[in-house]
Formats: sequence, C-alpha cells, structure tokens
Amino acid sequence: VWLMRQAGRYLPEYQKLREKASFWHMVRTPDLAVEATLQPIRRFGMDAAILFSDILPLLSAMGVEVRYTDGGPVIHPPVRARGDLARLRPVDAQLHLDYVGETVRLLAGKLHPDVALIGFAGAPLTLAAYLVEGRASRDLQQIKALAYNQPELAHELLSLLADAVYDLLRFQIDCGVDAVQVFDTWAGLLSPEDYGELALPYARRVVERARKLGKPVILYVRGAAAILEDAASSGCDVLSVDTSIRIQDARERLGPKVGLQGNMDPAELFSPPERIGERVRRLINATGGRGHILNLGQGVPPEAPVEGVSAFVRGVQAWKP
Amino acid sequence: VWLMRQAGRYLPEYQKLREKASFWHMVRTPDLAVEATLQPIRRFGMDAAILFSDILPLLSAMGVEVRYTDGGPVIHPPVRARGDLARLRPVDAQLHLDYVGETVRLLAGKLHPDVALIGFAGAPLTLAAYLVEGRASRDLQQIKALAYNQPELAHELLSLLADAVYDLLRFQIDCGVDAVQVFDTWAGLLSPEDYGELALPYARRVVERARKLGKPVILYVRGAAAILEDAASSGCDVLSVDTSIRIQDARERLGPKVGLQGNMDPAELFSPPERIGERVRRLINATGGRGHILNLGQGVPPEAPVEGVSAFVRGVQAWKP
Repeated sequence: VWLMRQAGRYLPEYQKLREKASFWHMVRTPDLAVEATLQPIRRFGMDAAILFSDILPLLSAMGVEVRYTDGGPVIHPPVRARGDLARLRPVDAQLHLDYVGETVRLLAGKLHPDVALIGFAGAPLTLAAYLVEGRASRDLQQIKALAYNQPELAHELLSLLADAVYDLLRFQIDCGVDAVQVFDTWAGLLSPEDYGELALPYARRVVERARKLGKPVILYVRGAAAILEDAASSGCDVLSVDTSIRIQDARERLGPKVGLQGNMDPAELFSPPERIGERVRRLINATGGRGHILNLGQGVPPEAPVEGVSAFVRGVQAWKP
Repeated sequence: VWLMRQAGRYLPEYQKLREKASFWHMVRTPDLAVEATLQPIRRFGMDAAILFSDILPLLSAMGVEVRYTDGGPVIHPPVRARGDLARLRPVDAQLHLDYVGETVRLLAGKLHPDVALIGFAGAPLTLAAYLVEGRASRDLQQIKALAYNQPELAHELLSLLADAVYDLLRFQIDCGVDAVQVFDTWAGLLSPEDYGELALPYARRVVERARKLGKPVILYVRGAAAILEDAASSGCDVLSVDTSIRIQDARERLGPKVGLQGNMDPAELFSPPERIGERVRRLINATGGRGHILNLGQGVPPEAPVEGVSAFVRGVQAWKP
C-alpha cells in the first residue's frame, strides 16, 4: 500500500517545510526532497515511498522554461511548430538532474529495506501535452490539432520524449530506486484510436526498455476503461487505474498476468474512518488481495484529512485473507 | 446530424449578437435565443436545432443565485447542509421559465418541419454537482464527500432535482420540442458504484417519466466506457457518448435497441476538411449509419473553425449507404 501524492499538502509537517521553500525549490534541494518523501512513511508506515518530485523537471532538464504558478505549471512559449523542437536538448541526467540522483541515493540509504523506493516519470504523450498546450488542459485540443495537422512533427516530438523519459528512469534506477511508475495521466483524454497511435507506442517503448533494467514498471493511465487491454499491452508489470473502472472488471479483462494498482476514490478520504475501513476491505476482496497494490485512483487531495489517509493505510495493514 | 453547442462562439454571426448582449441576457430574451438557435441551421442545414439555453436556468428558477463569470458559472453560496435545501423552491415553469416556453413556441413556428427541435436539461447528478461544488469541478470532491457523509441529504437533493428536471422537460415538450436531451455531463467522474447509486436512479426517473410524454429522450454521459450498460438501462431512446469509447464497441455492447449519438472528437474540427470528411465516413461506417445520430463527443469548441463544422455536416449529408 502506498498513495499517489502521499507526500504533500494534506500533511501539517509538509506545510511546515513549504513555509520556508517553494515546491520547485524543495524538488531541487535533496535534503528537503528526502524529508518530504519520508514524512508519510514515518507517520503511516506505507510499503513504498515515492520520490518527492514532479514530472516536469525532465522538461526543464531539456532546456524548457517551466514556471510553477498558483494556477498550475506553465510552459511558455509552448511547442507548436517544427522550429520549437530545436529548443529541446537531449537529457544529460548527471548534469541537469543531479539533484534527483542525490535525492534517490540519500533515500536509498535511509529507508528501511522493507520499504520500496519508487521513481517515476511522465509518459511521452502526457509530457508532450504539457509542452504543446503550455499548461494542464481538460481536452488536449492543441496537441490533438497538432497531431491531426502535422503528424510527423507530433511523432518526432513523442519519439524524442520517449528517449528522454527512458534516460530519466535509467538514471533513477542506477541511483537506487526499486521500481518506477510512468504517469500517462492525460492519455485517457484521447479517443481509443488516438491512444493507439499517439500514446501507447511511446509508453510501450519506455516500458519495454525500462523493464530490461530489471525493475518493475507501473503504468498509470487515468480514464482507461475503454483502452485497458491496450494499456496493459505496453508490457507494464502493473497497470495503475483510476476510479472510473471496477477493479474486478479490470482483473477479469486482463487476467492474472498484469498486476493492478488502485483504485479508491480520493474523495473517500473525506468519509468517516469506519466507512473507509469498510471500503478498503471491499476493494481488497474485489481482487482477493492478489497482484494488487492498494492505492487511490488519483493523488491525495491537498484538503484531505490526515485521519482519512491513516484509516486507508491502517485498513490495508489490518486486512487478512 | 447536429452538434452539441452548434449555436455558439465559433460562429461570427453569434459573436455579433454577443456584442450587444450577455450570454445570460440572450438566454432570457426569446428573440435573441431564437436567432442564436437558428443561425447554425441557416448556415449548415443540420437535421436538428437545439434550444439555445443552458442547464443552469433551471436552478435559477428554483431560487438559486447563478452568476456567469469569465471563469464559468458560479453558485454562491453552494448547497452543503440540510438548511440549504430550504432555499430550493419547486419549479413553476410557466412563471419562472416563461422565456423558455416563449422561445420554444417561436422556434416551433419558424423551423422547417423536417428540422427537429431538441429541448434539454441537466441530469439530477450533474445539477447537484453544480449546486454542491458551487462551480464546474474536475473531481466532484464536495458532492462525493456530501454523499459519503450525509447520504440522506444527498438523496433528498437528487430526488428534488429529478422532479424539477422532469417539470422542465414536460414544459418544453408542452411548448413544442420534438425530443429532449438530458445532460449527465459529470456522472462519468463517479466510480461505477457511485454512478449506480447517485446518478443512474435519478437519471432513470427523469427518462422514464419524460418518455411517457411521447417524445424521444437522449441521455448524454461523458466518460461512460465503464458504465455503458448501466447508462443505457435508464431506458433512454438514444445514448450520447463521448470520444473515450469506440462507437462500434458501444453498439456491440448495447445491441440495436438503443440508438447511439456521437462521437467525433471536437479537436477533429481543427483538421483539414478532407481528413474530416474521411473521419465522418469512418464514423458512420462503424455503425453502418443505422440508429446513429452523428454528433461530436462534446460541444463545439469556441475556437473551432467554421470550415471544420461545415466539413463535418457536409460529410454526413454526402454519405450514402
């Protein structure tokens, strides 16, 4: 059991760190990133810690200017034309992501051997969406329009990002993470046909290469009900699904060969603790607890009560087959 | 063929109307609402006109203060506690929605008999989401938390809204619409379990009652891939689906008894016209053009090129089995 965004604003001890440092500063400062990563483990004892970072530092390492604003991250100017590709340089992780390496190495030395350390990256389509839209988007209108009008340019961008994502995951694994999660958060906003053309081939390229490094790869896709089999065909060890699908249906459709991760609704964290415990039991029973990493369907909301997160983790820890 | 939001900002003649009147003023002024409704029919010759309105005037008629801001509609204060229910009065459509009745009557007199006039309303869950969240929300966190913590209150609100929605649809049908569409736009943000508990029973109550009035009922649910059979079990004549599902899969899963509406990606409107024509043919061929109302998966974006909409409609009109 672990939770996406388990290190974050819902924790008072995290809020305290943030009083003195911006999110971006924390990500780039290994001591602070290590502390943020460890906070939820100390308090709740999850089975895995996830590197405190974000998917956009990779773009930053590629020479793109990323600003974190109150309205979310902004990339300006966005990538819209062939000339914009020249702004993207290949990733030299040792040089431009040295702080990530240092954070992973420090964490690997501090975590109890029973606690897994998870590294992560955005998937090529999701990163491309940020680059082309310039910010989080509800409809991916710009990147779709780019792909429909300039397909070669879109594929060139996705290909270049697939290489960069792999480089980052390899670097994280070299530095000591035990598993990696690839976030294709926005891919579910594509039609199944576009998913097969623009998202899956590049997610697959990343997953296949990363798996050869000997660590398990988790693929997260939000809103994957219509493309579940496609997403699993990426070769991922574990498919992380959001709340929009019944996890027993996912198990039935995918069979036992792919692990599943998820998929409690984050809004359940606002429920009374007894209800949370009951929902956790129901969620585990839906898969029999086999090949199932307990998690939410999306990240912990900043407003979530600490008691809700605690009830979720305790519920899993208390489960017996 | 028709398009959701076919009357709207992408049309220069609509922009011209909006120079002199706010959206809200247009909705409440029958002459302007009639003109906006007719504009796309004149230009493109769709098979159906949809009443120029919004789903929130119903809440306004219930005594709720709705403000249209640049950031979208705002309901303040939102409904969060039992005492807030007292603010919601039963709908007297003749009195509080007289402008809707007048617009429908005028349109029924002006439209060619071959062009259907579609009325519409928000579904209970979607309206409840607006009332409780206070604005459009990406995660429905507030209404979910309300339903988990005060289930009786949530069901009371949904039940009260189901009655109001039915009253509005009956009024529209009495005034002369040929069909109605119920928008459960946000219901796909619920888990399948919550959909079955909070959205479906109330959508079903509305659909079943409205069908008895003798006009076809279309139900729209965004992101319905995991709950397709449930949504169809509402008894709707036509299920309108967004782009997240292959329409041939929807046909296969639902059989020929339920009509389908959709589901071209609105971003395709930004494609070259030849590509749009080709995509339209592919979409129609996916169902053989039987029991299939051609439409987008979501509304026409304000930035869509007029040529794209034109290519979409002409593509359907040119199709031959």
